[in-house]
Amino acid sequence: MNSFAFTCGDVNGIGPEIVVKTLNKISPKLKQKLIFICPKNVFENLASTITINFSYKIVSTIPDFIDKLDVIILDIGYCKISPGKVTKSAGYTSYKSIVTSCELAKKGIVDSIITAPISKHAFIKAGINFPGHTELLADFFKVRKFSMMFVSKKMKAALATIHIPIKKVSNQLTSRKLESVIGTIRLSLKMDFDISNPKIAILGLNPHAGESGNIGIEEIKVIEPLLKKYGDYVFGPFVPDAYFGNKLFNNFDCTIGMYHDQVLIPFKLLNYNRGVNFTAGLPIVRTSPDHGTAFDIAGKGIAKEDSIVEAFMYAKLIVNNRKKHC
Amino acid sequence: MNSFAFTCGDVNGIGPEIVVKTLNKISPKLKQKLIFICPKNVFENLASTITINFSYKIVSTIPDFIDKLDVIILDIGYCKISPGKVTKSAGYTSYKSIVTSCELAKKGIVDSIITAPISKHAFIKAGINFPGHTELLADFFKVRKFSMMFVSKKMKAALATIHIPIKKVSNQLTSRKLESVIGTIRLSLKMDFDISNPKIAILGLNPHAGESGNIGIEEIKVIEPLLKKYGDYVFGPFVPDAYFGNKLFNNFDCTIGMYHDQVLIPFKLLNYNRGVNFTAGLPIVRTSPDHGTAFDIAGKGIAKEDSIVEAFMYAKLIVNNRKKHC
Repeated sequence: MNSFAFTCGDVNGIGPEIVVKTLNKISPKLKQKLIFICPKNVFENLASTITINFSYKIVSTIPDFIDKLDVIILDIGYCKISPGKVTKSAGYTSYKSIVTSCELAKKGIVDSIITAPISKHAFIKAGINFPGHTELLADFFKVRKFSMMFVSKKMKAALATIHIPIKKVSNQLTSRKLESVIGTIRLSLKMDFDISNPKIAILGLNPHAGESGNIGIEEIKVIEPLLKKYGDYVFGPFVPDAYFGNKLFNNFDCTIGMYHDQVLIPFKLLNYNRGVNFTAGLPIVRTSPDHGTAFDIAGKGIAKEDSIVEAFMYAKLIVNNRKKHC
Repeated sequence: MNSFAFTCGDVNGIGPEIVVKTLNKISPKLKQKLIFICPKNVFENLASTITINFSYKIVSTIPDFIDKLDVIILDIGYCKISPGKVTKSAGYTSYKSIVTSCELAKKGIVDSIITAPISKHAFIKAGINFPGHTELLADFFKVRKFSMMFVSKKMKAALATIHIPIKKVSNQLTSRKLESVIGTIRLSLKMDFDISNPKIAILGLNPHAGESGNIGIEEIKVIEPLLKKYGDYVFGPFVPDAYFGNKLFNNFDCTIGMYHDQVLIPFKLLNYNRGVNFTAGLPIVRTSPDHGTAFDIAGKGIAKEDSIVEAFMYAKLIVNNRKKHC
């Protein structure tokens, strides 16, 4: 039996609400072991407004034996709910939920974690210095080779650089970095997505992919030499706008973009509220929705769970693929 | 009667073919004065393979009086045709065609120019040092305040920086530059697109629009102070990926992006082969298709003219709007 942990994300955002809506959808059908890591008061508050159609038990440690129960609510301590607000306590709670999920995964209690959206401002208020889940998880598992991937039925994409200013992208785009991303993505496409001979596209950094050095030199200095080495399965560097305009991503198993918005703008345009964020290269499987905390609609009961349901479906697929390959 | 000049673009690309296909479509219906600036041999070569359904005369200077004629072919001298090749002579011819069109516009012989795609490599081979049409036209008309715009039924967008490496974007993004773009775009939306109170959206430069300074400071240092000044009609800075994901461009008359691919990736994804490039801020009206020379299909007769037909339709619209406002 596969087992999955859901984190609560920032309790002042839509995280807990979309997780509960997801559990309502998936738990009775799938007979998975499902753990929701969330303050008891936050879950009970939701249970008073949303009809819960799964059986559950609120615990403070995971029991050795669980039976005839759809969901375990793992209480991580009281957190005041202030919908739409950035608070230190919500920042700390969201962090605690992630770390707890990692510990469960490390111990083998869950096969996969699905993380709800956090507020990075709340993280900062709580003194937690990670720009996002991806970097936190890589640090927790002491992994150096990892990559932020975005997956949907329409396309898979990965980022060479993540949460850094545009100004710093060029300097951080080293051969070593790109080689690491290519390696991570290739292995992930094989093991996690069961693609035996993946074809990877790599985008140029600059307008017109540098136009033979007229508009930037990173394509010539960094990307093209790599293609000589990995040309059997990596193709490019493609002119970014023409690549998406001509929908060339349909011809490849994954598109590697050089910076955050080069991938996220087209990915969200194609997949909003259906896209899934996946961290390739971790020893555990972690997925999440591709949207944020949506503070503006927090506590209103109108948040849509589509993206996190998709995140769960991908987590399940990847867990099964990994088992097949091990 | 409105009058329009078409340039030939790079004769080794699809430029002349898509212009002739466009003239076939528009000339008999519209009764416009149409001038196609193209080497005689290039036009005759096309006329031997494509059925021409308009009346025309090949001349080497524009006659004073033209009557009962659909199209004037203005010969600019022999140019060898080498489909798909980058040649010095094609580079020079494409340049000559643009400059000739500018001279006709300056003299008031045409109201508007529609430019076919050029090869910048051929430009370089011919010793012409402009990264694209936009910069060449701004130089010809001695215009300092101009902006590259992309227009379609789905969205209008403008670029704060154009053909520069990603590395240099941050440094070139000054308040002065952005103020100039905002001013140019606002005036163009009023005069060229007949929008009396245009609403303009401005995107952040960095991932998550800098996240309050955590991922870059240009939003705080450059963009936000401008919004205090122009907040009546400029809104933002928006988080780029969420802006496109949520299709917020539907709420604004124009979206200003900070760099080439921030706008061109979503624009082409939404509009490929239907998008139009328009240079705002010029004394003359200039539009063009949003695609390149397509060297790979040059000379095969299979190029599609949709985008340049749209470019002509927008040129007509803008010419009429300008006349209304003058």
